[in-house]
Amino acid sequence: MAKTAALSGFPEWLPAGRIVEQHVLANVQRVFELNGFASIETRAVEPMSRLASKGEIDKEIYVLRRLQAEEGDDVSPDKQLGLHYDLTVPFARYVTEYAGKLDFPFKRYQIQKVWRGERPQDGRFREFAQADIDVVGAGELPFHYEVELPLVMAEALASLPIPAARILVNNRKVVEGFYRGLGLSDIEAVLRSVDKLDKIGPAAVGELLARDAGANPSQIAAALELASISSPDASFVDRVRALGVEHELLDVGLAELAELVETAAELRPGTVFADLKIARGLDYYTGSVYETLLTGHEQLGSICSGGRYDSLAKVGNMNYPGVGLSIGISRLVSRILGAEMAAPSRAVPTAVLVAVTDESSRRASQKVAAALRARGIPTDVAPSAAKFGKQIKYADKRGIPFVWFPADAASDGAAEPDQIKDIRTGEQLPADPTTWEPPSTDLWPTVS
Amino acid sequence: MAKTAALSGFPEWLPAGRIVEQHVLANVQRVFELNGFASIETRAVEPMSRLASKGEIDKEIYVLRRLQAEEGDDVSPDKQLGLHYDLTVPFARYVTEYAGKLDFPFKRYQIQKVWRGERPQDGRFREFAQADIDVVGAGELPFHYEVELPLVMAEALASLPIPAARILVNNRKVVEGFYRGLGLSDIEAVLRSVDKLDKIGPAAVGELLARDAGANPSQIAAALELASISSPDASFVDRVRALGVEHELLDVGLAELAELVETAAELRPGTVFADLKIARGLDYYTGSVYETLLTGHEQLGSICSGGRYDSLAKVGNMNYPGVGLSIGISRLVSRILGAEMAAPSRAVPTAVLVAVTDESSRRASQKVAAALRARGIPTDVAPSAAKFGKQIKYADKRGIPFVWFPADAASDGAAEPDQIKDIRTGEQLPADPTTWEPPSTDLWPTVS
Repeated sequence: MAKTAALSGFPEWLPAGRIVEQHVLANVQRVFELNGFASIETRAVEPMSRLASKGEIDKEIYVLRRLQAEEGDDVSPDKQLGLHYDLTVPFARYVTEYAGKLDFPFKRYQIQKVWRGERPQDGRFREFAQADIDVVGAGELPFHYEVELPLVMAEALASLPIPAARILVNNRKVVEGFYRGLGLSDIEAVLRSVDKLDKIGPAAVGELLARDAGANPSQIAAALELASISSPDASFVDRVRALGVEHELLDVGLAELAELVETAAELRPGTVFADLKIARGLDYYTGSVYETLLTGHEQLGSICSGGRYDSLAKVGNMNYPGVGLSIGISRLVSRILGAEMAAPSRAVPTAVLVAVTDESSRRASQKVAAALRARGIPTDVAPSAAKFGKQIKYADKRGIPFVWFPADAASDGAAEPDQIKDIRTGEQLPADPTTWEPPSTDLWPTVS
Repeated sequence: MAKTAALSGFPEWLPAGRIVEQHVLANVQRVFELNGFASIETRAVEPMSRLASKGEIDKEIYVLRRLQAEEGDDVSPDKQLGLHYDLTVPFARYVTEYAGKLDFPFKRYQIQKVWRGERPQDGRFREFAQADIDVVGAGELPFHYEVELPLVMAEALASLPIPAARILVNNRKVVEGFYRGLGLSDIEAVLRSVDKLDKIGPAAVGELLARDAGANPSQIAAALELASISSPDASFVDRVRALGVEHELLDVGLAELAELVETAAELRPGTVFADLKIARGLDYYTGSVYETLLTGHEQLGSICSGGRYDSLAKVGNMNYPGVGLSIGISRLVSRILGAEMAAPSRAVPTAVLVAVTDESSRRASQKVAAALRARGIPTDVAPSAAKFGKQIKYADKRGIPFVWFPADAASDGAAEPDQIKDIRTGEQLPADPTTWEPPSTDLWPTVS
């Protein structure tokens, strides 16, 4: 097992686990860049006034103070700093701050750690990496980005050593239009109730709807009917229509959700599903919302979530709407390692270990290593001029596939060439450091 | 300018600057891996008891507290958390914690942010990225790693868009042996005085040596003579010998320093220089020490420093000696951007923008984009079906070199092929998304 966690909530990986994490990060980064997203990083801290503006979440903030704080230090909420707990708040601030220097629509990805000051005993991650993509427009942002972004995430997730991911989508306009058409007006209360469906079941949700949203039995029945609808194609539209509810917003929402599911089915079949019970985030998103379940690991919860928001930021009279999704990298890597879904072919980058005959010839071994590295072959030099058996053991222990014996080491005749040994097969062949190549599958560690 | 810094001490880059930083990070990471260093990351926090054990540095620690801290929260130094201010303290803790699961000698690299709770008005970076390499042995660590590690850093720095870097080396054994041979015993006081040479000059250092280290005039003269010696080869040995000081430790140190400079001159000429006035860090390092100056930017101070330590960590009876160096990435990138040493060929990853004729044909454009991405070509789709002139402007503004016109867009005949336009030359040619390739220099942004 390549996972360890000595300080609860702060996961760390051993080198083998880190190679898996690097593989995950490199793959999602590559997909983001192939789709035209530019990288940014933001500072880890934001003023408390900005972090605390979101209400309840302020319970989870880590506040900073300088150990040797002085009397003159300004600790007003504008000046006091906390660690960011997501990448959306800092991205909104970044857009506000640099709007004049950015080109809109602005497509960015951001892969960074975030921190949540959870109670230590709760066992949740208190530090974890997220990988976010967002598109933000100046003034307006066309709907088609709500279709394209989950497809980028589907492509990113398909590049990872994990089971198939199912992206479940819903739309605020569908549910709000439906509830309004039903005659319900406290939409937030309805959403809060429906959000508990998986946990407490339909009967209990019905009671909540009656108590908190003032729903009557037929309204409850219709709301539960709506939440029961899911579909890999646009057939859900007819099923919603069959419930007989009419509202202008419902029409708009159904058209959007159908367009999203249909385009996804054509461009990347089997990845995106309409699921009308998805309610999480619908209280602050304004259009599409996304959750993602990993087949066989549904109890992990959503590994990639997000949605459409009509106002990420405002600068003067200009409003910046956006749509974005976020992968919980640390949770995903933790599961990949914990469930042994993938492992690296070796725990070091090294493909070749150059042996050292005696310390006086170390420089010759270093030159062989330099020649191999100059041609892109990761190479290490043996730590000591121990017996060759011990040097081979050094390589074997780390999974380094090849050991190189410089000429003086491999023979007692000066005209002999260097030798390279594949320690997995024992095969040993003459080799020249200016031309020898390992099989491409051995060049770098692979993850599978 | 791609640099901004709205919260003093917390640098952030615009997307163009971030591409330069990504280029720097990718290059150093590649060199580290080519040299067999394994990646690790450690959590951002350590218990205060561990961070504060180094004396003076505790002035610069950011201490964390949960905003909604509760009465039961343990705030003893073992439990209270602070942000790490370097990558050495967490690495030592990592080695201690996972020693049983690591293979020694353990070669690791670590690229992460660190934080220093500097006074806001001091203008220093309070958050910055470092790139560290270290080798740590179990029980012992051969001297040759003190030769190899600065050469890895020389290779890493040579891969960056910066002027030539000069690595200056000294050795604790040389200076301690020399001072002891001179009859001085308060080595720390001598080192502290000599460390001020560049700032206050030899006369004032002489006064400090007399006052703080009890040196007499001939001892002062000899110490200043030693500090004046620098050399790109082993000729410094004779110059030190000519000062007539004898000490066993001096002999060992001179042999080591000569070996380091000679090997470096052979493997990577013109990069490593003996410089016997280097004193920073000699109070806690035990062998070689390294500093690095950037030609033409010497006033930046050292951009890459480190040294040999005889005890990074202890576990039971086992001692873990090591040697390591650290590049200050943020400071280097800040200078690269500020002095306009390098810029990216474009500010987005995108090589191709696929035009959209009208919104009803967007899916056709998305399919072209998917075909290009599947072959590794970073591609974006136009945000709206505006006039083609406006779509070309969208690409031009971002530096995207190619605009793709799907067949229906490029012509009114269905048999016409798609067209690709190089918007820098205006050249437009027929193209097939399953075979077309951009010139390799246009595939990804380049930095130069």
